[in-house]
Amino acid sequence: MQKSITIAPSIMCADLCNLEKSVREIEEAGLDTLHIDIIDGAFSPSMPLGINTIEQLRKITDMKFDIHIMANTNEFFIQEMLKVGVDQITFHLETSLHTDRYINLIKKHDTKVGVALNPSTSLSELDYVLPQCDTVLLMLINPGFATDKGEKQVSYAAEKVEDLSKLIQSLGLDTKIEVDGRVSLETIPTLVRAGADILVAGSTSLFDKSNSLKDNKKIIETLITEGLKEEATING
Amino acid sequence: MQKSITIAPSIMCADLCNLEKSVREIEEAGLDTLHIDIIDGAFSPSMPLGINTIEQLRKITDMKFDIHIMANTNEFFIQEMLKVGVDQITFHLETSLHTDRYINLIKKHDTKVGVALNPSTSLSELDYVLPQCDTVLLMLINPGFATDKGEKQVSYAAEKVEDLSKLIQSLGLDTKIEVDGRVSLETIPTLVRAGADILVAGSTSLFDKSNSLKDNKKIIETLITEGLKEEATING
Amino acid sequence: MQKSITIAPSIMCADLCNLEKSVREIEEAGLDTLHIDIIDGAFSPSMPLGINTIEQLRKITDMKFDIHIMANTNEFFIQEMLKVGVDQITFHLETSLHTDRYINLIKKHDTKVGVALNPSTSLSELDYVLPQCDTVLLMLINPGFATDKGEKQVSYAAEKVEDLSKLIQSLGLDTKIEVDGRVSLETIPTLVRAGADILVAGSTSLFDKSNSLKDNKKIIETLITEGLKEEATING
Amino acid sequence: MQKSITIAPSIMCADLCNLEKSVREIEEAGLDTLHIDIIDGAFSPSMPLGINTIEQLRKITDMKFDIHIMANTNEFFIQEMLKVGVDQITFHLETSLHTDRYINLIKKHDTKVGVALNPSTSLSELDYVLPQCDTVLLMLINPGFATDKGEKQVSYAAEKVEDLSKLIQSLGLDTKIEVDGRVSLETIPTLVRAGADILVAGSTSLFDKSNSLKDNKKIIETLITEGLKEEATING
Amino acid sequence: MQKSITIAPSIMCADLCNLEKSVREIEEAGLDTLHIDIIDGAFSPSMPLGINTIEQLRKITDMKFDIHIMANTNEFFIQEMLKVGVDQITFHLETSLHTDRYINLIKKHDTKVGVALNPSTSLSELDYVLPQCDTVLLMLINPGFATDKGEKQVSYAAEKVEDLSKLIQSLGLDTKIEVDGRVSLETIPTLVRAGADILVAGSTSLFDKSNSLKDNKKIIETLITEGLKEEATING
Amino acid sequence: MQKSITIAPSIMCADLCNLEKSVREIEEAGLDTLHIDIIDGAFSPSMPLGINTIEQLRKITDMKFDIHIMANTNEFFIQEMLKVGVDQITFHLETSLHTDRYINLIKKHDTKVGVALNPSTSLSELDYVLPQCDTVLLMLINPGFATDKGEKQVSYAAEKVEDLSKLIQSLGLDTKIEVDGRVSLETIPTLVRAGADILVAGSTSLFDKSNSLKDNKKIIETLITEGLKEEATING
Repeated sequence: MQKSITIAPSIMCADLCNLEKSVREIEEAGLDTLHIDIIDGAFSPSMPLGINTIEQLRKITDMKFDIHIMANTNEFFIQEMLKVGVDQITFHLETSLHTDRYINLIKKHDTKVGVALNPSTSLSELDYVLPQCDTVLLMLINPGFATDKGEKQVSYAAEKVEDLSKLIQSLGLDTKIEVDGRVSLETIPTLVRAGADILVAGSTSLFDKSNSLKDNKKIIETLITEGLKEEATING
Repeated sequence: MQKSITIAPSIMCADLCNLEKSVREIEEAGLDTLHIDIIDGAFSPSMPLGINTIEQLRKITDMKFDIHIMANTNEFFIQEMLKVGVDQITFHLETSLHTDRYINLIKKHDTKVGVALNPSTSLSELDYVLPQCDTVLLMLINPGFATDKGEKQVSYAAEKVEDLSKLIQSLGLDTKIEVDGRVSLETIPTLVRAGADILVAGSTSLFDKSNSLKDNKKIIETLITEGLKEEATING
Repeated sequence: MQKSITIAPSIMCADLCNLEKSVREIEEAGLDTLHIDIIDGAFSPSMPLGINTIEQLRKITDMKFDIHIMANTNEFFIQEMLKVGVDQITFHLETSLHTDRYINLIKKHDTKVGVALNPSTSLSELDYVLPQCDTVLLMLINPGFATDKGEKQVSYAAEKVEDLSKLIQSLGLDTKIEVDGRVSLETIPTLVRAGADILVAGSTSLFDKSNSLKDNKKIIETLITEGLKEEATING
Repeated sequence: MQKSITIAPSIMCADLCNLEKSVREIEEAGLDTLHIDIIDGAFSPSMPLGINTIEQLRKITDMKFDIHIMANTNEFFIQEMLKVGVDQITFHLETSLHTDRYINLIKKHDTKVGVALNPSTSLSELDYVLPQCDTVLLMLINPGFATDKGEKQVSYAAEKVEDLSKLIQSLGLDTKIEVDGRVSLETIPTLVRAGADILVAGSTSLFDKSNSLKDNKKIIETLITEGLKEEATING
Repeated sequence: MQKSITIAPSIMCADLCNLEKSVREIEEAGLDTLHIDIIDGAFSPSMPLGINTIEQLRKITDMKFDIHIMANTNEFFIQEMLKVGVDQITFHLETSLHTDRYINLIKKHDTKVGVALNPSTSLSELDYVLPQCDTVLLMLINPGFATDKGEKQVSYAAEKVEDLSKLIQSLGLDTKIEVDGRVSLETIPTLVRAGADILVAGSTSLFDKSNSLKDNKKIIETLITEGLKEEATING
Repeated sequence: MQKSITIAPSIMCADLCNLEKSVREIEEAGLDTLHIDIIDGAFSPSMPLGINTIEQLRKITDMKFDIHIMANTNEFFIQEMLKVGVDQITFHLETSLHTDRYINLIKKHDTKVGVALNPSTSLSELDYVLPQCDTVLLMLINPGFATDKGEKQVSYAAEKVEDLSKLIQSLGLDTKIEVDGRVSLETIPTLVRAGADILVAGSTSLFDKSNSLKDNKKIIETLITEGLKEEATING
């Protein structure tokens, strides 16, 4: 059976003045997950959208909300998202003192839990965390600096995905690997081949303006299939 | 000549999933200023909307943007708003170490500058600041706690507006007084009478759901006229 | 009618290994208020006793608990003390961003509210705070440095008490003035004469080891009467 | 020769209003070590007892004081405890920037040194720390949240103790393993079998109210013997 | 008798690679006070020179060291400067929680104490501080931004000096007024006339490169005399 | 071919009042690299010299500047040093949230990049960082406490250098190992043998006052040769 890959469109790349329309378009393209970034302006110098916006979004769609918190005060934002009602909450290990607590807090609300790692963060941080999580999100650019023109995907992106994939397999876990940061039409096959399960899709893939969102989705699916075949060849 | 009062609708109270539509409705009601709150989740436990949303809003309307920063790191948000291009930037004195610098930074970009005070903050903090500002924003509830059901306008709201109004007059200045927090149909006449120039209008006035936005605007204008008459009687 | 002065023994000066015994002794001396300091080790380098100790104390006595928070995170400690159930909560203005909010939070729980000022803090900070408070606590030494041998009561102690007393009278309020820091047998008459209502009594008065607690209490009462007479003569 | 296991009663679970009496009872039960938690209200939302209490405790007993600092400012609390005079000081790696320095600071005062790890913290953090320490304390619940009803011992508790035990053996060290957090009558045999040397005993073991402290101690000793036998079977 | 004005050359403007030579030149010009700025890179984005440099400077000259701390952690830098041995230590009120304590700490070491105010800070902050100080330093530019080309002396510089001068006189004190920030050949007469006692002299006066340091000193002295005459005329 | 070892004199140990003269002496001894420490007083309680001093130093010499930032706000100091123009910038992993970003920021300016580790920090932190760096600096004392008399080189210094050296070789990299902290005449052979490439030379080697700087340099070179021979024997 072929592994299923999730395309998670990043709401930051949608039309923020017409979110309802954007969401409808995404739904109509057959996608069921929205990736929503929360940045507090202190973790990194960005603040894409706000909590009130997410609250109102929640009321107009049944899509799954995949929340990615980039903040210095994880507990506050976790609690807020639990109030909103979302499907997965991911927070960064680098700013997390009571990681085990946050994981349990999220799980108690029947919400999936992810931990996110900056590009330079070692996987050894995951020793006692990985078995508790549904997802590990690997940042492939420095989080919150997406608008920096010069910000490219790190050269070791595929290597890190592969390392994590092997680690998960060696432990007999089925943790999902989510990749975020310049997940572009060029890099998707490689990332999928390396073991990525969830692709955060932004301006260099799903929202690439040379095509419609629907067409981009088809292109991505083809690229995913391509990546999966090669993966099967390697691991199969 | 009658004093002119500005009604500044708070974008937080608009339809955040259909901002363009909301803005058009506000424009059509004949209003020309949008009050936009930025809260960083650390100054107070809220984060209504984000910088990217404001950037996109800027592209779809020519309305004046009246930015109210509630943050621990004023300079970052001031610089971001200067990049977006707005008409007035207001920041809180309570978290401001280099106030004079921030004022100059804003002025150099031909942008109006306001300073905001929490309800409990003394006007004596304004001694060397008031003459440099276009506007002083008085918070009449605790900022960032607007969604707390129990959060009422402070009992000394009108008194503080009046104190500030007298101070401005005594110094021969024409600084505007902006009032923010439960500026409701009930309190508008009193606040106008006390000296308010700019009314941040939210869910208890302009966005009161028992009427259309247009009708609410008319009611507010009537209340303003009423307040101004009484003021004229007192001061005139 | 003679003004009533409260002697509030500081629990820090009691026998911390035998608190129940100490409390009984204080009760038997006819005192009904316990002054309890909370310091977080960050506001100043001290941490006298803990929250769990206060919780257990609450269960063994009906004395009034007069809580003095010296912390960087007022809201956390206020909420904890509201859970314990106390009679008055005082927090420092210097570390308080949302002062009006904390005041209301305390009042909603039918608890008296005080604000505390460091020795060097100006009374002008109280402009919009004073009418909302039951008590203003004036620190007469630098808070949290009580164990520094060289730490003396500030030379302007009586002057500041008097200034505050006049301010309260000029506003027609009946706010209580609490004094804290080397409130000794030597300084009590002067402080009472200056207008103090609540005396935080520690090692230099009630717990002075040359006498029993009961005898010290009698001496203090005599000194209070002396101070009140002189006050009457002045204000009379 | 059978390995010796230390039962370290947590002072937090004693009668905080009658500490002297509690300490006598503990002494009479034949225990010689007191585990004392210091939490600053910022590392986690608790502050069980204070420095002054510890100072006074020091004067009334010769028991060994095993101090567990949970704070953001380790150096301050280490210095305070060195002044008090204690037998072991343990601080958290997660909030420790100059770990090697703190270790030396403690050692210079002929005091044993421990480092503590939150449940989720990887043992790889110990690479250059382990050989310098007398003890590693493994938190088996999230520190400072002990009063949360839902807070259970982490599922990977025994696994982590075992991992650390193997690591210590592989390096030929004799570092002690201290376990803290729901070290209950149910979990003691497993934890001892996994390699624990010091058991922080609280409300779910030594202070379990269905028995006297003395009886609980006997039950724990039986459970320890049971655990040690099984360990011997495995490793022996 | 004519009032004596101190010219305090700012060491930041000297040749930092040849400080000994610079100091000799300053001494030979007949000046006896060095103004030394300490900035921690956090109070404002500058760090002109370091503590070790000041320590070594102390060993090569007997000039008076007038230290101006611009930092978030006043106590650390005060303690370091007390160890070095200096003549006056000035710290900012805006980052000072235990102001009275710092004042006493400095005084106990027979060192003069100053408090510094940012341009926008109100003089009402000084109510209980002024009588304890030897000097009040008024920043006339935003501290730590001196290298910003656009940073000009604030328009209300002379007004604030005058306000402070009147306040000092009204209290019968002889506190010195130190002025810092673009104290240039153009502004010196005005500032002296307004009541300044100590002039921090930098690149726009003493170190103006169109003249020798000695000649600049003479020009400044002439300008001071001019300012003093006018002052005498006004207050005379 | 024999491996080349760099001796990097620490500017902190030079004559800070006569830096130009010191630099000339260092140049004349045939050394081409200056090691310059930046400490912000918050990372650790030191602030050796300032940014302005480094700027002026840059103008008087063509030596390579090897900058070692010990600060809580890496990005600010990196940006400042990039403006000055230096040859290598090293920052600490322990205070670095966006490590990958800082590395790229430095590389984009054709500047070498190093990461520094405190003595107790594990090499596992380097997993995805090592291949991006030119240099890893190992602190062999606790950084910023160099003036503490009792501060000795950590006992595991050579072991850690050797571990890192093996790691670099195993990955086929040519990353340089820089050692800093009591790199003395006694320890140099051992450190070189263990794999050190760059020696930060201070008061216990190059600036040892029993010899001239030139003579010390010769002694160090002999010790290096000795260390290299032994290394060749082991690895060769």
